[in-house]
Amino acid sequence: MQLSPIEVATYQQDGILFLPSLFDETEIAALKAEQARIFTLDLAAHLRAASGEFLGTTAMDRVSPLYARLLRDERLLAIAEQLVGPELYCHQYKIILKEPFGKLDLPWHQDYGPWSHHDGMPAPRALSLSIYLDEVTEFNGPIVFIPGSHREGLIDYEVQAVPGTTPIPSLPNATVTRLANAGGLVAPKGPPGSVTLFDCCLAHASGPNQSPYQRHLIYLSYNPVSNAIAKPTRPSHFASRDFTPLVRAPRADLLGV
Amino acid sequence: MQLSPIEVATYQQDGILFLPSLFDETEIAALKAEQARIFTLDLAAHLRAASGEFLGTTAMDRVSPLYARLLRDERLLAIAEQLVGPELYCHQYKIILKEPFGKLDLPWHQDYGPWSHHDGMPAPRALSLSIYLDEVTEFNGPIVFIPGSHREGLIDYEVQAVPGTTPIPSLPNATVTRLANAGGLVAPKGPPGSVTLFDCCLAHASGPNQSPYQRHLIYLSYNPVSNAIAKPTRPSHFASRDFTPLVRAPRADLLGV
Repeated sequence: MQLSPIEVATYQQDGILFLPSLFDETEIAALKAEQARIFTLDLAAHLRAASGEFLGTTAMDRVSPLYARLLRDERLLAIAEQLVGPELYCHQYKIILKEPFGKLDLPWHQDYGPWSHHDGMPAPRALSLSIYLDEVTEFNGPIVFIPGSHREGLIDYEVQAVPGTTPIPSLPNATVTRLANAGGLVAPKGPPGSVTLFDCCLAHASGPNQSPYQRHLIYLSYNPVSNAIAKPTRPSHFASRDFTPLVRAPRADLLGV
Repeated sequence: MQLSPIEVATYQQDGILFLPSLFDETEIAALKAEQARIFTLDLAAHLRAASGEFLGTTAMDRVSPLYARLLRDERLLAIAEQLVGPELYCHQYKIILKEPFGKLDLPWHQDYGPWSHHDGMPAPRALSLSIYLDEVTEFNGPIVFIPGSHREGLIDYEVQAVPGTTPIPSLPNATVTRLANAGGLVAPKGPPGSVTLFDCCLAHASGPNQSPYQRHLIYLSYNPVSNAIAKPTRPSHFASRDFTPLVRAPRADLLGV
């Protein structure tokens, strides 16, 4: 799978591209069933709030052949290579849960903030993407992005504690205001199986899920091997030390059909 | 001003009706300027969080001729009389601020919950409405409603503390799930001057405003004099004791032009 020239130009201009229904219902059902199995495992890679609330997990490829195959799926990897270049590995791989009536929100930040701050990633060359395991609506805590904000590169940040994960270097209000006045706000919504690609310097935030409907997302980031992290300070489930380039696998391999 | 038969039927069916741009830019500018003046007054009717954060104010008609005239404006009062019947007074009148990057959210509740619980309002016959002083978008904490939920009347609730105001009798998660599965969710968005009418038994909630753009709303409720509150436990700025029926004034009177 390849993006059209217009899609590539949109991604370069806005730092974000939404691909509805990239994965089909059968694939999403398999990923959700496997997610449920992973959650039953006793793993240090799980994410929990101080209250004990389960927030999600990381590094699923270590315990799940299906999630390991997903990283190599040509639909994701070919697009990532087209946008970022060849020889990519996965820097961070996680599932974040926003449960019904949940409180989890995330402050305004760039993904590259923590990757630079905590992991020593040399340059902002990575691509982030989210895969929707559930329908994302305006009501269940969608991610809000500021188009074009990636063009500023790494922006001065403040480090803010967030329950269940390492502190997030977050953007000051005045910075967010300036960026939003220039680029506006967008929150891509769509059915399960949809994918949002975004530049690792694109500013984003998300609110709590006040609805009765869960919103589970897979996040993964592709980083060029030539940009591998230099000074990690976090456990490897937050920042992989396996810099082996991923090799594309055909779509049919995901479920072995 | 009168609603069409279809609008009345919609309100009765859904418990909510959105009227975009009912007030014009000049009127909204005057209401915002007067709001700023009211906020400078030293009033017990102001709403503050425990942190001291200013959340809004109540009973603006006591200190502002403009806000007193707004209660009688035929655009609001004629519609309210059409929906609820004649001889109405204003039970509660307030401005609630959601400032940029604010934390204020409101749990799922029916307005009639506190009016019954705290004020002894005999029956759920009142009409609520909100007037948008700012554009309401998906990003600045819009109110989310469950259409049709008003048809259940007063629903069993739990009392939940909320900063800056009296405790809100809020709806249990299982109840909200059942109601949303039946009626769906809607969040009316629109320009300043828009109005959302909603039944006092319509379930609603709202999330924090993570955007850089303020969202100030006027709320008011019309209640039939025959349904005046019987056993108030709160100060009168939360629950008026003036049961004099409001008399309609023409639109031109609002700004005296």
